Amino acid sequence: MLRPASDRPPQKEQQEAIEHIDEVQNEIDRLNEQASEEILKVEQKYNKLRQPFFQKRSELIAKIPNFWVTTFVNHPQVSALLGEEDEEALHYLTRVEVTEFEDIKSGYRIDFYFDENPYFENKILSKEFHLNESGDPSSKSTEIKWKSGKDLTKRSSQTQNKASRKRQHEEPESFFTWFTDHSDAGADELGEVIKDDIWPNPLQYYLEDEGEDD
Amino acid sequence: MLRPASDRPPQKEQQEAIEHIDEVQNEIDRLNEQASEEILKVEQKYNKLRQPFFQKRSELIAKIPNFWVTTFVNHPQVSALLGEEDEEALHYLTRVEVTEFEDIKSGYRIDFYFDENPYFENKILSKEFHLNESGDPSSKSTEIKWKSGKDLTKRSSQTQNKASRKRQHEEPESFFTWFTDHSDAGADELGEVIKDDIWPNPLQYYLEDEGEDD
Repeated sequence: MLRPASDRPPQKEQQEAIEHIDEVQNEIDRLNEQASEEILKVEQKYNKLRQPFFQKRSELIAKIPNFWVTTFVNHPQVSALLGEEDEEALHYLTRVEVTEFEDIKSGYRIDFYFDENPYFENKILSKEFHLNESGDPSSKSTEIKWKSGKDLTKRSSQTQNKASRKRQHEEPESFFTWFTDHSDAGADELGEVIKDDIWPNPLQYYLEDEGEDD
Repeated sequence: MLRPASDRPPQKEQQEAIEHIDEVQNEIDRLNEQASEEILKVEQKYNKLRQPFFQKRSELIAKIPNFWVTTFVNHPQVSALLGEEDEEALHYLTRVEVTEFEDIKSGYRIDFYFDENPYFENKILSKEFHLNESGDPSSKSTEIKWKSGKDLTKRSSQTQNKASRKRQHEEPESFFTWFTDHSDAGADELGEVIKDDIWPNPLQYYLEDEGEDD
């Protein structure tokens, strides 16, 4: 390499400089940690402040029939995951709640509240995402208690007509397979779309096809 | 759609609920803005606090010949951009500085300080990245004043040997084309690698091939 010997300070001086850089770096790292902690506190404070408004919003949304299924159908990424029967089942979805855990970096949970419906017994379906100490992501979900012959994740049954079988061939997955798929917890597309895109302002998607802009 | 008329509240009541949701949403948006401002203030505060340590670190790094070229060569993504002659030119790089603008979201600048060298006249090469009011990214750079026959971004000259011509065929770009490429200012790979990966801790890359860990 192009390091003429004359350019080099004595090895010792270089080694001292490296040790010194390391000390300064430790100070920088310490400040980075402090900054992260302060930012986390700000986020936690505002999460608390937003809570009563989210609560109020949920109550108002519950007054509007089919708010959530309309919102999901109007959202391009979510819509792409919805089969015809998924959509029917989602008409019973009355409430969606996103909860970021106190230590926000450690994860979040999405709860779906359903009315009594012909598809499954559960009143609430949840999926939650965690990061463990070493930063590895994982997720877990409610087990869906399907009613007989109604498991939308196994749509090979006689309940389907030709058209839906054909469509199934092209997009074999159901929205509800999301509750059993824990393969990509670190970058769960649907989870992140709901948390980061829909939850901050679901009304904009609900209103989309009503021709209202703002 | 599956909306039995009996399930629907009067149209008026629904419309009122939507208006009410809109008001609540405005409160949530207002809190989001406040949170962003507070977080920006924390980041600005720590940027100031880190400054003297970055300054000290730069002075110490300047004592170590070839610190930056070694660091770049050891970084897999940057290394991939370096031709043989780029590496020679980068032996004259004595100082790298990353400056995030006061309103951090609005952009950053990277300054490269060079010793007198056979390639170009400039003492400092800079590239800076901006977001305008509507969030559109752009970048601009110092124009490099190449010495005669030394323009590394136009390596078709007779100064190249066969091996480097061959390599040029596979990877025709020079590190220094980065200073004229403003096509992807919103996601400038090299800019972001330097700002987010190298600048926070360059020593770890410098030391990499010396077999030292920790």
